[in-house]
Amino acid sequence: VIASLVNGRPGDRIAILDRGLQYGDGLFETIAVVDGRPALWKRHLDRLALGCRQLGIPMPDADLLRTEAERLIGDRTTAILKLVVTRGVGGRGYGPPADAEPTRILQLFDWHGPEGRPLALRICRQRLGIQPGLGGLKHLNRLEQVLARRECPQGEGLLLDTEGFVVEGIASNLFLLVQGRLHTPLIDRCGVAGVVRELVLEKARQAHQPVVVRRILPQELEEAEGLFLTSSLLGVVPVDELDGEARAVNIRHHPLLEEVADLAFKEHG
Amino acid sequence: VIASLVNGRPGDRIAILDRGLQYGDGLFETIAVVDGRPALWKRHLDRLALGCRQLGIPMPDADLLRTEAERLIGDRTTAILKLVVTRGVGGRGYGPPADAEPTRILQLFDWHGPEGRPLALRICRQRLGIQPGLGGLKHLNRLEQVLARRECPQGEGLLLDTEGFVVEGIASNLFLLVQGRLHTPLIDRCGVAGVVRELVLEKARQAHQPVVVRRILPQELEEAEGLFLTSSLLGVVPVDELDGEARAVNIRHHPLLEEVADLAFKEHG
Repeated sequence: VIASLVNGRPGDRIAILDRGLQYGDGLFETIAVVDGRPALWKRHLDRLALGCRQLGIPMPDADLLRTEAERLIGDRTTAILKLVVTRGVGGRGYGPPADAEPTRILQLFDWHGPEGRPLALRICRQRLGIQPGLGGLKHLNRLEQVLARRECPQGEGLLLDTEGFVVEGIASNLFLLVQGRLHTPLIDRCGVAGVVRELVLEKARQAHQPVVVRRILPQELEEAEGLFLTSSLLGVVPVDELDGEARAVNIRHHPLLEEVADLAFKEHG
Repeated sequence: VIASLVNGRPGDRIAILDRGLQYGDGLFETIAVVDGRPALWKRHLDRLALGCRQLGIPMPDADLLRTEAERLIGDRTTAILKLVVTRGVGGRGYGPPADAEPTRILQLFDWHGPEGRPLALRICRQRLGIQPGLGGLKHLNRLEQVLARRECPQGEGLLLDTEGFVVEGIASNLFLLVQGRLHTPLIDRCGVAGVVRELVLEKARQAHQPVVVRRILPQELEEAEGLFLTSSLLGVVPVDELDGEARAVNIRHHPLLEEVADLAFKEHG
């Protein structure tokens, strides 16, 4: 970590009674800082606000978060900004205190910027539990991802849900190119609705080539012409290997994905 | 909180980089201190060790934990001891660092001792996701319980899994008395395998009246002669109301449960 702010003050510690620690009662965002500015800022804040609403955590003031983010970034050009919002300090027991004040934590990490190189993808044995009440949110309950990463330390791991449908990468979303059309798994019962995923969906709608969002089975991946991963830190990258088998890398053949790959680090609103 | 120790030192703060906060990457135990001693200590430590093994977290030394617990309890007779073990401080990303040293947090809370009074039980809309890899463990990913408690702030809430089977209370396990025999839900795909639940199972085996452990549907609760909740802080208490309907309270008619209700605060090994 280069620097961090806890509730606006330089610091790197929180109370052990913070519900973020006690129960994972909070949310986070991982933001690419490129050219000195947090990329896709508005999209990250919108997702954070949605998560806060769903968990009943008061959303911190967006202008305040932006001011603190800029303070932390200073004159750095490239970095990773991690934003954590918890329900705040509580007592013992699952019930949130009525007067809890959210804790906001901003951390800046060293980063060399997006690499853009293809990734090898491997299907994890670890599955994602189905929990519609938390589906799509980037909350702090991340043991499934921790266990998956222990199993797949190299490249990216692909997570299926407990019913066997493809959901996402450990820290990325997945797109399939099938007969020239983009498909991506539904993120309604588990998984994280990534901001770059949202950007792909939006650009595809605008281009009148809407992405097909549906349940996808693992065997469909083999038949796809191309597989792509998206995330705030990857942008859009092709998969060049699936479970040890080489795959065609053809992002250049898909203008929409190329556009998003570029936009992912340039949209600063 | 009366007092707390972080890695053996008095303190009430941890690093924001602790994986307990970042990912809920850890476990906890809530222990009743009665007559100045932590009840069911060995059972709590056994569950903690099992959880550590499953998550790949090195288990802190049991004697050290006991020494620290006794130091914290001091000359108090009645209190709640909460023990948290996380994977320790890490960097950014889900992958655990190879050299992470577990963080151990001991907190002592005020408590007036077990009340033993019956509880009203209400079925929550919030469901438990099915995740066999974490089933039974008392890990730090507790958003499901937080959301359930927001929905059921009074009495105890009963959680079904996403397939509709009964699992447990928000902070307790459930037993049904059916034709004189105890039944309890399987805790294999979600839920916490409570230490008092284990004690009931063990005593029932010893008495040659083994508990029937199986999948249970909500409608079976209505037909049961009695419903009981178990936890480290409740011991064993009857349910006197189910979804607003009064229920018979008959723990005294069941010697085995009476024995466990008593033992739950007296077994100090």
